[in-house]
Formats: sequence, C-alpha cells, structure tokens
Amino acid sequence: MGLAEDILAGGRLALARALTLVENDDPAGQAVLSALFHSTGRAHRIGVTGAPGTGKSSLVNQLARFYRQPPDAQPPRRVAIVAVDPSSPFTGGAILGDRIRMRDLAGDPGVFIRSMATRGSLGGLAAATAGAAQLFDAAGFDVILIETVGAGQSEVDIVRLAHTTLVVEAPGMGDDIQAIKAGILEIADILVINKADHIGVENTERALRSMLELGHPARLAGSQFLHHGQTYIPQAPSAGQAPEAEVWEPPIQRSVAPESKGIAELAAHIQRHRLYLESSGEWQRRDYQRLQHELHTLVQNALLQRWEQQLDPAVYQDILAALAGRRISPHAALQRLLGSADSRR
Amino acid sequence: MGLAEDILAGGRLALARALTLVENDDPAGQAVLSALFHSTGRAHRIGVTGAPGTGKSSLVNQLARFYRQPPDAQPPRRVAIVAVDPSSPFTGGAILGDRIRMRDLAGDPGVFIRSMATRGSLGGLAAATAGAAQLFDAAGFDVILIETVGAGQSEVDIVRLAHTTLVVEAPGMGDDIQAIKAGILEIADILVINKADHIGVENTERALRSMLELGHPARLAGSQFLHHGQTYIPQAPSAGQAPEAEVWEPPIQRSVAPESKGIAELAAHIQRHRLYLESSGEWQRRDYQRLQHELHTLVQNALLQRWEQQLDPAVYQDILAALAGRRISPHAALQRLLGSADSRR
Repeated sequence: MGLAEDILAGGRLALARALTLVENDDPAGQAVLSALFHSTGRAHRIGVTGAPGTGKSSLVNQLARFYRQPPDAQPPRRVAIVAVDPSSPFTGGAILGDRIRMRDLAGDPGVFIRSMATRGSLGGLAAATAGAAQLFDAAGFDVILIETVGAGQSEVDIVRLAHTTLVVEAPGMGDDIQAIKAGILEIADILVINKADHIGVENTERALRSMLELGHPARLAGSQFLHHGQTYIPQAPSAGQAPEAEVWEPPIQRSVAPESKGIAELAAHIQRHRLYLESSGEWQRRDYQRLQHELHTLVQNALLQRWEQQLDPAVYQDILAALAGRRISPHAALQRLLGSADSRR
Repeated sequence: MGLAEDILAGGRLALARALTLVENDDPAGQAVLSALFHSTGRAHRIGVTGAPGTGKSSLVNQLARFYRQPPDAQPPRRVAIVAVDPSSPFTGGAILGDRIRMRDLAGDPGVFIRSMATRGSLGGLAAATAGAAQLFDAAGFDVILIETVGAGQSEVDIVRLAHTTLVVEAPGMGDDIQAIKAGILEIADILVINKADHIGVENTERALRSMLELGHPARLAGSQFLHHGQTYIPQAPSAGQAPEAEVWEPPIQRSVAPESKGIAELAAHIQRHRLYLESSGEWQRRDYQRLQHELHTLVQNALLQRWEQQLDPAVYQDILAALAGRRISPHAALQRLLGSADSRR
C-alpha cells in the first residue's frame, strides 16, 4: 500500500490524496484507513462547536498558532484542522472563513487544514470526518482540531470523535438562544466565551454558570451514542475507570481570539483536561466507545447491503405499493419483506 | 383492539393513552399504530421550524386559532399540534411555551396539543413524532402542525413528515445566522418573517429573497432522505408526477403573530401549497417516500436485532478488544463479526 506508507513517512501530497479518497467514500480510501489503523490512537482530538457568529474559526486559528509557537521552550506540536460544515452544499466552506485562515497559517509544514462540506448526507459527513481524523492521527499530527457549526446532531457526532469538546459562546446572543444551549452544554468539557470584549459578557457568563450549577450531568452514556435507543450491545469494560468522586468540572474561559487574549489559558485548560482523561481512564474509555460506534455503523450498513442484494425488487415494489395504498401496515410490510429475503437464501 | 376503536370513535382519553404508548416505544403502541394504519393518509401535515427566538410557538398558536375560526363561513378544522423539542431532557417543553398555549386553546375539543421531548435519542424522537402524527391522522384531525426548534437534523426529519414546511425567520438575527440558514431554506415551502414589526424586517426579507434568487434547488431528492447516502433501494414511481415546468416558488410572508397579522395570508399560502401538492402528484409522492423511509428504518432495526441475537457476546468482546488494541482494523473486525454470526446459524 504505497499511499499508506507515504503518509506514515510524512508525505503531504499522499495525505491530501487519501483525504479526498475518504471524503468521496472511495473503496481505496477505506483500504488506506485499514492499512493505517494500527498507527492511530495517539493524537488529541479537540472538538470546537458553537453557534454561527461566536468566532469559532478565529479561535481555532489562534489555538493552532499557539500550538505551533508554544511558550517556555516547549516543542511545537503538529496541528491538523478539520473544518466541518454540515449546513449546505450551497454555502460550502465559505462560512468557515477558510481563505482567511489559509493566509494566516499557510506555508507552515506543521499545519494541515481540511474543510469538509456536506455532500447530500449528514451520515456521510460524519463518516468522512472520522476518516479524516484517523488519517491525521496516523500521519503523526499531535493535535486535531475538529470545528463544526453548532447544529444539533453534528455536536453529538463531535463528542463521539473528540477527546475534549469546547463549546464556544459569545455575548449578546439572546436569552432564548441561551436556553436552547442547555442541550449543547451537556457535551461541553470546556466552555469558551469568545468576543469577551463585547457588551454583555457578564450576563453570558452568569447564564452559563447558573446552567452549570443546575447540574452538569454525567456525559451521555455510551449506549446512547451507539444505538439511538433502539437495540443494545454490551458496554465498554469498566476496568480502569475513574472512581465516581473524580469528576471533571467544565471551566469557563473568556477569550478575544483576534487579539490572542485567553488563548494560553484555554490551551492550559485543554492540557489539564487531557491529563484528567488519562489519569481517570476516560481517554481509553472514549477511544473504546468511539471504535465500538464505528464498528456498529459498519455492521448496520453491511447487514442492510446484504439484505438488499438478496431482495427481489419486484416483491419490494409490490409490498411498497400495498403500503402506500394502506392495504398493509408498515409492520406487516416488514414481516413480508424479511420473509421474502430469507426465503431466497 | 379496543384502544384503536376508541380513537376512531373520537375518544380523547384513548388518543392520549396511545400517544403515551407510542412515545414510550411500547409494543402496545405499535399494535395501535398498525391497527389504525388503514385510516391514515388524509391529514395535512404542516411542519414549522426556525431558530429559537423567531416566535414559532406563537405563530403555530395563531394558525391553530385561524383553523378553528375560519372566515367566510368555512367549517372549522380539527387541529393537532405536535411540539417537538430535540434540545435536551433538561429544558423539556418549557421553551415551547406550552403552558401559555394550553391556556389559549384549552377547552376546545377540536384541538389537541402534545409536546414531545428528547428521551436520550434523536432517532427515538423522530419515530415517536411520526407515530404521534399517524395517531392524529387516524383520529380524524384535518391539520397536524408539527413544530420543532431549528436544529439541523430535526428539520430534515420534518421534511420527511410534513407535506408543507414553514421556515420561520425574524429580523435582526445577524448576517452570519442568515448565512447558515441557507441549508434550512432548501427545505422551505413557505418562508415566514415573524416579528415583522421589529427593526430590520426589510433587510431580512432582502436577504431571504436574494438567497431564493440564488436558486431554490429542487427539494432534496428522495434517496437522500432515505439512506443518508449509503445504500440504495429503488425509488418511488414517477407516474403522476408533475411536469418539470410546474414548480413551487416559496413565497415570503410577513407576520406579527401576537396581533394575528399575516395569519390569514399565511393560511392562504398553505392552502395554495396543498392544492399544488395535489395537482402535481407531489402529495402522493411525499406520502410514498415517507412510508418508504419508515419501512426502511424498520428493516434496518430488525436486521440489527436479528444479528445481535445470533451473536456470541464473548466473540464480540474479543473482537472489540482487538480493535481497541489496534491489532485489527474496523473493517477486519466487521468481517470477523459477520462471519461469526453467520457460522452460528
């Protein structure tokens, strides 16, 4: 597998090619991912999410710069940025301000930026993003910043992918917007109030703090990620897990990204979270759950594909017509369909 | 099936009980749905979506009042409201202002309001909402208003359920919020600028109009709804479909819900859309696609359940451990898992 070897050797062109293969759901992309799989599991995946207008892109940008030029003679870290835009094939990557970012970090061989736009399916986007993160991981990037526009399902997908999730807020987004954010707060490891030089920052911080006090629930249990509540597969082993007393309290960090204010402090929180993950066994547990979820998706798709291959299209159309004519119920249709596929074995 | 008969006879208590069974994913709920299925397919399902703060609930409220007291001696229509809140089990239905709404429409036997909150899974919520809509349909409600907080995936699920989708905007939500809305615009049959007495309504309308001019794409093709782009099943028949020239241009309607301004005009657009759906064959096509999607989800879950029953838990744990240890790739794990389940047949 020439491409996989080239990526392990640090080839940027090979990496870019593999990213495209993965994004296009090309079988060759799957082959590269499989070949590289044993080299993954080292990178720190950091999810950054929040509503439009909170300045996420700028924040991600500044974090990347910080990791490239850390203080106190620390070695610079290699940084990959995956900018995910689930909104629309229309708006494309423009929202995420890629061109501005490119200019800022361009020419640094320790940085790789890739934006992923929806190609008709949310499920496909999540899979492509997961694949891209794996490629960057195998290629030896130390930090992978995964940025998504805050839009419901996509945040949940970030939690699955990321070790550490940053939820970005900004002052003055309105009270009802704050209310809806309660759902997003549940996935936050670190809260960032960006644009902290704007009016209303105290109100925003107070609102966030009172929501946190309402009770930061335990991170959603693994089973919810796996099945959307339908069927169950045994859970990750609890060996190596932290005792219940050792919990992570999400800190709130203010920042003004364009002026690099609060960035070093934010990076310190991220580092502290990484140490927490490692010492508590959470790092391993999240890794395990993520792989379990990935495997589960593969199984589900494979089962469906197999079944479709066995299915008689004429029988399928007949059953659908009976369903649309309200002659049989969906459950009766299901029984007929499964019976039909089985009898052709 | 006593419950189903009671619902067909117009029993509100029976309906409430069935709604709870469906929401709790109780097998008895499935039985009621199956028994009532032949009585569905008549109600006009109207989806109402938009960001928090646009006044969706108030608008839905006013539409319901309009349908209950139509002008020009038209008969009142029976109205069901399904208020979906995908945000969080935390915030619950509070955001949707149910209590206010209840007070307003309470005591009217021609109105039934039900709110559905997330119970741990988005997939479960979509299924429960679909079930609730079916129950209301069978129970003889003429109009079903399905309201969701605008949050990515949930809008797509509305499009699946609704014949007519209203996207609600409000002035002064900021330019970058407008930009992100492009994705939502694609699903709009009718655009509503609510709070049209607020400053900036002209800007909002101009922004929406220019986005529409950028090209209102054909509604997303059925296959995208069905499979999230992974596998394929034959499409709905094109018989009875409209010629390409007959397209629907989404109108933009201003409203001030608390003052009932623009509500009659909005209802007229909705009626016009219904006539368009019927004359173009779209009504039937959307019904067909929705049922096909529902069947597809049932098949997928049934296949997974079957497979899990055949699976040896010890083998599964071994394979997962090898995966987490990076000794085998996800694809190799898949091959082993499918092989293992097969060999136990």
